[in-house]
Amino acid sequence: MKLTIEQSKLAEILETAYLAISPKPTDPILGNILLIADEDGIVSATGTNLNLTIHTTTTANVEISGQVALPAKLLTDTVSNVKGEITLEVENQACIITHNSGKCRLIGGKSDEFPALPKGENPTEINLSAKKLQAALEGTLYCASSDETKLVLTGVNFKIDTNKWQAASTNGHKLALVTGTLDSEYSDPINFTVPGKSLGELNKILSQCADTSVCNILLSDKTIEFSLPNTKLISRLLEGEYPKINSLIPRSFEYEFTLERKGFESALKRVSYLAERKQKVVKILWELEATQATLYTEATDIGDAVDSVLMKPATSNSENISIGLNIDYLIEGLKHISTDEIVVRCNKPTQPVIVCPMGGLLNQLYLVMPVEIKQGFGKVNSQSTKAKVSTQSEPGTEEVTEVSTQTESGTEEVTNVAQATDDSETPQIETPSVVAKDTTKGKSTSRSPRTKKEAATA
Amino acid sequence: MKLTIEQSKLAEILETAYLAISPKPTDPILGNILLIADEDGIVSATGTNLNLTIHTTTTANVEISGQVALPAKLLTDTVSNVKGEITLEVENQACIITHNSGKCRLIGGKSDEFPALPKGENPTEINLSAKKLQAALEGTLYCASSDETKLVLTGVNFKIDTNKWQAASTNGHKLALVTGTLDSEYSDPINFTVPGKSLGELNKILSQCADTSVCNILLSDKTIEFSLPNTKLISRLLEGEYPKINSLIPRSFEYEFTLERKGFESALKRVSYLAERKQKVVKILWELEATQATLYTEATDIGDAVDSVLMKPATSNSENISIGLNIDYLIEGLKHISTDEIVVRCNKPTQPVIVCPMGGLLNQLYLVMPVEIKQGFGKVNSQSTKAKVSTQSEPGTEEVTEVSTQTESGTEEVTNVAQATDDSETPQIETPSVVAKDTTKGKSTSRSPRTKKEAATA
Repeated sequence: MKLTIEQSKLAEILETAYLAISPKPTDPILGNILLIADEDGIVSATGTNLNLTIHTTTTANVEISGQVALPAKLLTDTVSNVKGEITLEVENQACIITHNSGKCRLIGGKSDEFPALPKGENPTEINLSAKKLQAALEGTLYCASSDETKLVLTGVNFKIDTNKWQAASTNGHKLALVTGTLDSEYSDPINFTVPGKSLGELNKILSQCADTSVCNILLSDKTIEFSLPNTKLISRLLEGEYPKINSLIPRSFEYEFTLERKGFESALKRVSYLAERKQKVVKILWELEATQATLYTEATDIGDAVDSVLMKPATSNSENISIGLNIDYLIEGLKHISTDEIVVRCNKPTQPVIVCPMGGLLNQLYLVMPVEIKQGFGKVNSQSTKAKVSTQSEPGTEEVTEVSTQTESGTEEVTNVAQATDDSETPQIETPSVVAKDTTKGKSTSRSPRTKKEAATA
Repeated sequence: MKLTIEQSKLAEILETAYLAISPKPTDPILGNILLIADEDGIVSATGTNLNLTIHTTTTANVEISGQVALPAKLLTDTVSNVKGEITLEVENQACIITHNSGKCRLIGGKSDEFPALPKGENPTEINLSAKKLQAALEGTLYCASSDETKLVLTGVNFKIDTNKWQAASTNGHKLALVTGTLDSEYSDPINFTVPGKSLGELNKILSQCADTSVCNILLSDKTIEFSLPNTKLISRLLEGEYPKINSLIPRSFEYEFTLERKGFESALKRVSYLAERKQKVVKILWELEATQATLYTEATDIGDAVDSVLMKPATSNSENISIGLNIDYLIEGLKHISTDEIVVRCNKPTQPVIVCPMGGLLNQLYLVMPVEIKQGFGKVNSQSTKAKVSTQSEPGTEEVTEVSTQTESGTEEVTNVAQATDDSETPQIETPSVVAKDTTKGKSTSRSPRTKKEAATA
């Protein structure tokens, strides 16, 4: 093999193929990138970790065709740091790379030991705009589980029904769903789950694609191939039935609030410093008449905080509502929405809360389960949320929240969104076991003095 | 205490005082920042870890004077993330911070347990331009040792003699020295060593100072106080005699090479990928007639590399010279020089190499010890350094380097710059124990074929 190529073209295919390389390859040959140069001037780079294979091509001035497997990191680092036109010449497994200020010799692996590209049989073809696929991945990947013991949850589940498609992910605590329509119709429903890791790399490739690119998807029994101009990504599918998440999403909502996304995120961040370390719970009181959401942290031995943001309510219920939420989960959901405004939808303090973008490229939703509201929220707010410094800051002015009787068997505080297993047809949302009945409904916060000691032992 | 202050002013003093806070305070009170508001509208913030104290002031609208010790991280994070005018009100160790969208209550420590500011007795006063002090720290801090067992080497040593001052640091492998002149003269020589950690924080404060600021230094027996407008940093001094490093720096040089700094750094980076993992040695052949420096890595089972950069020689010796150097040390030195061009000075392959900026605010030098050049450097360079790809890339064309007889007792490959101890008056540079006599002198590389096996067992 002997070829001359512009550094930027070679660097680009190497950096793409390198995305599939495992940092700790199970077989030494998998630490290599396979370079193939053919007589027509096409040069391809392939990287694989057996679960994921990336194959990408470019053009070069090929003098002698051939192939070579070279150490992926060394090759990519070296080519990324030279400039101008470079020459590759292979002889006896060694490749000499000559560039404008020097050269280097890399010793490669045996290219005939490199795994062949996986081929699926009788694939189903699906075409989707690259930008929409990317938006779907950005709207779902962050909710995939990182727990390898629930393997199917580490992926994103795709479903197609006639001309409708959806992508969904959940780790049991949070859930994301993106839906859209296809140009073609499919007579049989399609359902498959792609590993989150593979889709993470696909997302990087999609972000480099032209806005008008189409992703051609070939779905087979065990593998899926995503083809983009010059680049193919082939991934194994995840086996096992994905939990039926659609039934977890409420169909109607009593409350709907529109908020400015960044302002809400800043307020959450401000109160998060004083939220209790482990759970980081915020109580959000949605005040309909005041058109504001007030955020309270629990009073602890480090202190507490209250903050407020404006919102536009649209409700079928005229009573204010208080919901306890995990701040980190909520901020994470907001980070994966790109629109300026968001819509929060909910029904009861024990039922899932939905966060959606206002507009955007696709229908997108984020579901997060509420958290039990404990004693001691709203202490600092001894007057009203917008009042200036209250002089009443001594211990013993905590808000009383009456704990309801236990309604479910479990005693966990953060409940799982979906506990669906393969044999459970209609998974149920576990409701929080102990939920506060909030006393603040449509009027100002009620309070009764109690000592700190009493609160702690309650 | 009750005061109103612009958020940016409070955030600034808190972020500065926070620099002195230990992430794991030995005493809980040291996890706090002490805020003091006086009747004249001055608010100060103090942080300390006992070795280092930072005290900084600003102005505010103080309604009630007083003091409070508040959790440093919580307070700094909270204030950094609010906007506009904020009010602080303290009652019973709790502080209520009110901002434009909410408020929070922080529970503090006992302010009377907070350590008093350290006071030095009969201090010597030194004044130095803040920008020059900063340049001195940036030119020396990176060579201070991180090894706490050689405590004095974890600092930067300062010396003043009449109106001349110098700052020096070394970890035994590399050495940095910066020198300048003072406006005042001192009749007695001054010598002190300041912990690198304290100076690292001082460097951050200096980078915020106006270009015209002067740093007033008060040197006492055990402490040093650096005063800048609104901010004081007080540090303990390191005890123990600092090695006499000036005698390690050669006074005259046979070779002097001027190079473009960034080009040299890029070439070093390019060959670094193929340099042997542990030591990362590069052999640099300085070719006087060709006015270029050629960089070789050792041939290993992953391959090898050669690169070259142009240089301007100015030598009293007409023979080319090859020197082995640790790539990481060399790159680190280059990173801490800010001028476009650098000057490399050396004498023999066994003697220290000096890297200096060409120009710059202060006299600055970086000293690095050479490394033994082993067999196998320059293999890829089977023709000339600027030649196109050589077809002669099979094993067995390595450059021969004859190993000299051992000249010193040790057998270490990387030698220590300074082994000076308190009782050694004139420390000597340890020369590399086994140094290659390079055969390439003033003419093209000589080669003789030898098998890889022979080279490996030689």
